[in-house]
Amino acid sequence: MSGMWGSNLKLSIFGESHGKGIGVVIDGLPAGLEIDFDLIDREMRRRAPGKNKLSTQRKETDSYDVISGYFNNRTTGTPLCAVIYNRDSESKDYHRIKNLLRPSHADYTGYIKYEGFNDYRGGGHFSGRLTAPLVFAGSIAKQILEKKNIIIGSHILSIGNIQDECFDLVNIEAHTLEKLNIKDFPTINAEKGKEMAELIEKSRSEGDSVGGIIEAAIVNIQAGLGEPFFDSLESKLSQLIFSIPGVKGIEFGKGFEITRLKGSQANDQYYIENGEIKTYSNNNGGILGGITNGMPVVFRVAVKPTPSIGLKQKTVDIENMINTEMEIGGRHDPCIVPRAVPVVEAVSALAILDLLMEQEDIR
Amino acid sequence: MSGMWGSNLKLSIFGESHGKGIGVVIDGLPAGLEIDFDLIDREMRRRAPGKNKLSTQRKETDSYDVISGYFNNRTTGTPLCAVIYNRDSESKDYHRIKNLLRPSHADYTGYIKYEGFNDYRGGGHFSGRLTAPLVFAGSIAKQILEKKNIIIGSHILSIGNIQDECFDLVNIEAHTLEKLNIKDFPTINAEKGKEMAELIEKSRSEGDSVGGIIEAAIVNIQAGLGEPFFDSLESKLSQLIFSIPGVKGIEFGKGFEITRLKGSQANDQYYIENGEIKTYSNNNGGILGGITNGMPVVFRVAVKPTPSIGLKQKTVDIENMINTEMEIGGRHDPCIVPRAVPVVEAVSALAILDLLMEQEDIR
Amino acid sequence: MSGMWGSNLKLSIFGESHGKGIGVVIDGLPAGLEIDFDLIDREMRRRAPGKNKLSTQRKETDSYDVISGYFNNRTTGTPLCAVIYNRDSESKDYHRIKNLLRPSHADYTGYIKYEGFNDYRGGGHFSGRLTAPLVFAGSIAKQILEKKNIIIGSHILSIGNIQDECFDLVNIEAHTLEKLNIKDFPTINAEKGKEMAELIEKSRSEGDSVGGIIEAAIVNIQAGLGEPFFDSLESKLSQLIFSIPGVKGIEFGKGFEITRLKGSQANDQYYIENGEIKTYSNNNGGILGGITNGMPVVFRVAVKPTPSIGLKQKTVDIENMINTEMEIGGRHDPCIVPRAVPVVEAVSALAILDLLMEQEDIR
Amino acid sequence: MSGMWGSNLKLSIFGESHGKGIGVVIDGLPAGLEIDFDLIDREMRRRAPGKNKLSTQRKETDSYDVISGYFNNRTTGTPLCAVIYNRDSESKDYHRIKNLLRPSHADYTGYIKYEGFNDYRGGGHFSGRLTAPLVFAGSIAKQILEKKNIIIGSHILSIGNIQDECFDLVNIEAHTLEKLNIKDFPTINAEKGKEMAELIEKSRSEGDSVGGIIEAAIVNIQAGLGEPFFDSLESKLSQLIFSIPGVKGIEFGKGFEITRLKGSQANDQYYIENGEIKTYSNNNGGILGGITNGMPVVFRVAVKPTPSIGLKQKTVDIENMINTEMEIGGRHDPCIVPRAVPVVEAVSALAILDLLMEQEDIR
Repeated sequence: MSGMWGSNLKLSIFGESHGKGIGVVIDGLPAGLEIDFDLIDREMRRRAPGKNKLSTQRKETDSYDVISGYFNNRTTGTPLCAVIYNRDSESKDYHRIKNLLRPSHADYTGYIKYEGFNDYRGGGHFSGRLTAPLVFAGSIAKQILEKKNIIIGSHILSIGNIQDECFDLVNIEAHTLEKLNIKDFPTINAEKGKEMAELIEKSRSEGDSVGGIIEAAIVNIQAGLGEPFFDSLESKLSQLIFSIPGVKGIEFGKGFEITRLKGSQANDQYYIENGEIKTYSNNNGGILGGITNGMPVVFRVAVKPTPSIGLKQKTVDIENMINTEMEIGGRHDPCIVPRAVPVVEAVSALAILDLLMEQEDIR
Repeated sequence: MSGMWGSNLKLSIFGESHGKGIGVVIDGLPAGLEIDFDLIDREMRRRAPGKNKLSTQRKETDSYDVISGYFNNRTTGTPLCAVIYNRDSESKDYHRIKNLLRPSHADYTGYIKYEGFNDYRGGGHFSGRLTAPLVFAGSIAKQILEKKNIIIGSHILSIGNIQDECFDLVNIEAHTLEKLNIKDFPTINAEKGKEMAELIEKSRSEGDSVGGIIEAAIVNIQAGLGEPFFDSLESKLSQLIFSIPGVKGIEFGKGFEITRLKGSQANDQYYIENGEIKTYSNNNGGILGGITNGMPVVFRVAVKPTPSIGLKQKTVDIENMINTEMEIGGRHDPCIVPRAVPVVEAVSALAILDLLMEQEDIR
Repeated sequence: MSGMWGSNLKLSIFGESHGKGIGVVIDGLPAGLEIDFDLIDREMRRRAPGKNKLSTQRKETDSYDVISGYFNNRTTGTPLCAVIYNRDSESKDYHRIKNLLRPSHADYTGYIKYEGFNDYRGGGHFSGRLTAPLVFAGSIAKQILEKKNIIIGSHILSIGNIQDECFDLVNIEAHTLEKLNIKDFPTINAEKGKEMAELIEKSRSEGDSVGGIIEAAIVNIQAGLGEPFFDSLESKLSQLIFSIPGVKGIEFGKGFEITRLKGSQANDQYYIENGEIKTYSNNNGGILGGITNGMPVVFRVAVKPTPSIGLKQKTVDIENMINTEMEIGGRHDPCIVPRAVPVVEAVSALAILDLLMEQEDIR
Repeated sequence: MSGMWGSNLKLSIFGESHGKGIGVVIDGLPAGLEIDFDLIDREMRRRAPGKNKLSTQRKETDSYDVISGYFNNRTTGTPLCAVIYNRDSESKDYHRIKNLLRPSHADYTGYIKYEGFNDYRGGGHFSGRLTAPLVFAGSIAKQILEKKNIIIGSHILSIGNIQDECFDLVNIEAHTLEKLNIKDFPTINAEKGKEMAELIEKSRSEGDSVGGIIEAAIVNIQAGLGEPFFDSLESKLSQLIFSIPGVKGIEFGKGFEITRLKGSQANDQYYIENGEIKTYSNNNGGILGGITNGMPVVFRVAVKPTPSIGLKQKTVDIENMINTEMEIGGRHDPCIVPRAVPVVEAVSALAILDLLMEQEDIR
């Protein structure tokens, strides 16, 4: 099983990149919610390909059809299903390379798991295109959270070796995140953003690709969210983050760097300010014992370079079981990091909302 | 909800550090399995405190009582419950500091979540002691996997700034892992291990603590294990790994480093050897599209410095809502990394077995 | 939450009677399965309204669109989504009676639960129309089971006070069930069937409705299926059977009658025949301790009279909170029992397949 | 899987009749709850054997040990585990009949399912003794519900052919249920109760057994509880009710009788009284579309005659695969209905509480 998730808010995703369509069923939304479809559209556009020269030139409108669960401009409280039909799919391309395993894609593992019956065209169910329904669902979650003043935002921390400034773990302002949310290429330092964009463009021209790191933050989140052990906030977030194709790592707060600190440096000591308990530092990224402590939740996500590259690669013809070589033609993102940004935010919103519904009656 | 986990093999953990006991119910074990209790004991001892001067001097026997599910030296197929009774608990210590929030512990978040009703003694349900039932359950999973020749092992990759050698991602031998499994302080480079031990001892003498990174590997694992999206192998593993108190990051294969490579460097190209499909490199850590590709599964886990330190720290008295200071007395691990090693392996075995049971009838 | 179900085979249903459409996501189907769409169509027709004068005269084509999970005439192994678009919906009818609670429908309970935001037209998400996706999914399950020679069939045991013969609990032949499967109005005794049809017709002419009992059987099912306690076969079946609108009771084997027997009469004693263990009687309906014993699984389902009747009824205007009266116009089934027959079989197939997948690798 | 249940309140049960013990983990209880252990004891005594001559003469103290989740006389909010140790087990008895399949018990199905490795002594995990942890957990749920004025009660509606009066579906008073709760042998008509007791005693003297029907009611339950489809209140209740060993049927409201009514008779018409919406009749047993409508929830449960009887029965020696005969010696209940009464109430309380927690923050 793979396509269902959630305890209080439940998702069921489906679809293949070059089939009839992709979509999601969202079960457990509160009734009476007026959805801001403009916000959904904005988030969908952030993820969509073809929006600028930094991403693939395929044009996917990613327009969705809400099949159920929405009536008289309000959620009904019963399952909401949205379908995104596939249109601009050149599936003929794929027959030619059907038996050639694209390196670092899921072609081989999908073939083995589904005994060759999976839809191989464009990655099929494994396609990054399946993140579109996640963004759709997450955008609804995001707007529910925003009503409670919980703001999620992120920036591109690095592309290859070019590094943006990190979030200040202790002081992250909601309006900073909101500004990042509407940027095309969200970085804190604009100059670094320009360098990153140039590196991506250079990769494209070389037929190669680059990866990067996304840093995300959640602010104004109350203390007490999350559970000890299996439903720790880190567990919930990481389960969803690793559902995003291409992610190879996640770290919270100081993350791997915390291992180089002494306890006396790493510990987030407490103080009271205006009747609220706060910590001087936030090396734990706002989470202790799996539960929020009211400080900003901050984490970083490692995204690998796009596996689809134009350069010649060694591979195997799995039908004939022979060694061979291939070049992946067509239009591909030289870097998926910018498009992964809204996906990271979307699944974060889903994780937070699911945990919030555990303890609050959300409306 | 927090203490239940699993799809095919299910766990329910319970207990508090200074209550009557802790334990686990394991539901879904195959019937007819002869459990190797010596192996369980070995793994329990690896996790147990007091085994050498590098860890806390508390003596916990961690002997368990199998209440159900085992009959005539075989599993019955019905739920197996094991209880570990608490004995050497000096709970009087804790009344004194009941209202003082120990920095970087779950005292504050637990207090908020459970409105002050949680058992605060020694961290209560949040205690690292709760990893003992996980090791118990994981040791059973580990021996089931070993019968299928799937071997899990790990080493301490770093303590503070002292770094062991990394696993060779492509070539990890089962016997290397087996040797690490029986080491008291598992490192690849013995000299580095000695330095690490010295650093831990130094931290103790300073009343401070250190963190580190554990690198784990799973070999001889067949291709096809894991699911796309929400039950990707990375999702399953990370959910459980972040259940371990003190973990702040996880990365697979090259992990965060992969973001600095070009696609042409990062991609794991294929070749056939002796009729088997392999990859020249293993930057994806044996997982593509959430599913194993037959190469070693490798990941790294960041463990923070023990929050319990002897040095004076700023904190808050939550009962009286005043700023104050505290020193945490008593016997505490200056470094929990060595004790976390068998826990990382245990939960990995549980994740792998749960996914394996999805597609095989395990006996 | 309401619309998701299953442990190994998972369903997510969605839709409203008078919205854009209804549908189902089926997650966990084996890859490589060639679906017999003729069988699905046959089962969908059995459930569809308008097929003869005994049911509502609305014409619903109930044609479905498979959006995902099916490629090159085989299941892919990834989620299969089917959407049935609504066409012949006269939703204008419903505005008029929007505030009038139709007695014994879910109008009131849906209103309360969803605070008035639910789609009230034709029952919305509560409509019997939502059983169409269940039949779609169940028909796939049914054909997987048939390959393993497990046959599910049923008949109308009673309509009002007119009673068909009961199944012989011990000896039910597969071909008897298969014959019932293709009957328009399945009874064992054709004469009684005619009487039942006449009673239904009479009810229609009176503007009234009738209920009845469906008796279902599953044969050639191996011993050992089901689990003790919460996933007992009775638990699994009854959970799904009570998901069917209008069902008010279920009983297994002798059911309520067994309470009138002595133990010495009720007990199903064992004997060996041709190396197989059988029971002389089958008062337990093929299930002991929640697990199949290899004898036919037999159960009966009580279906209430259609709540939509033409006669005047007392009710409440919930908007204005006044007592009033109503007559439900339009075309309605005077009896939903015949259309419920394939639904009972469909959900039974789903329950059995889900349990079977617990212990077998289904292909 | 079998021993875990629940969405918001989760249970994990374990144990065998003649092993070390049985028990339950309850996950999701609100923190800060003061448990009334006297109420638990009362309910445990109602279920316990040996309490009078109508039940088995074995003496089981059924005293429980709360291992976790309770601190300073309050629930902690973390998992509560209770273990009931087995004491008065004469397991030697069972070796003699180890290979003889007791008719209508789970000996055969358990043997097949667990390939002969299950604990066969006294039914092992299938034993009715496993209902003790359910009563423990349900008694806690019951007291949480009582604080919200939701009262659950039941009576013995029939033993064999002797029939008590039915509940008046429309008017059931809380205090009637409360009185039934403390009766040793709860019937509405005391005279009928006496006759039933005589029939049970007669069955014992004949070495035979009898079954019966339990009628349960839940009053003061708000409208809006339950979900459409898979988590309908009927689905939730029936899943748990069929987890009770020996249950073969369940019906809600008029149940099977409703199939004999016309729609115009069966429909529960609405009216307003003191600003509240009520129904004149309650043939649907307080549930419409799977959701409560505020009227009493009423259902009936068919319990089969105790399978353990002293009379000679035909059976099979499964080790030697020969036909043979057996007499079941020892002390057994001639009728399990009276002891099943508190179990029915307990699991009902669990189902209601689980659904209630879906929409309310319970404290």
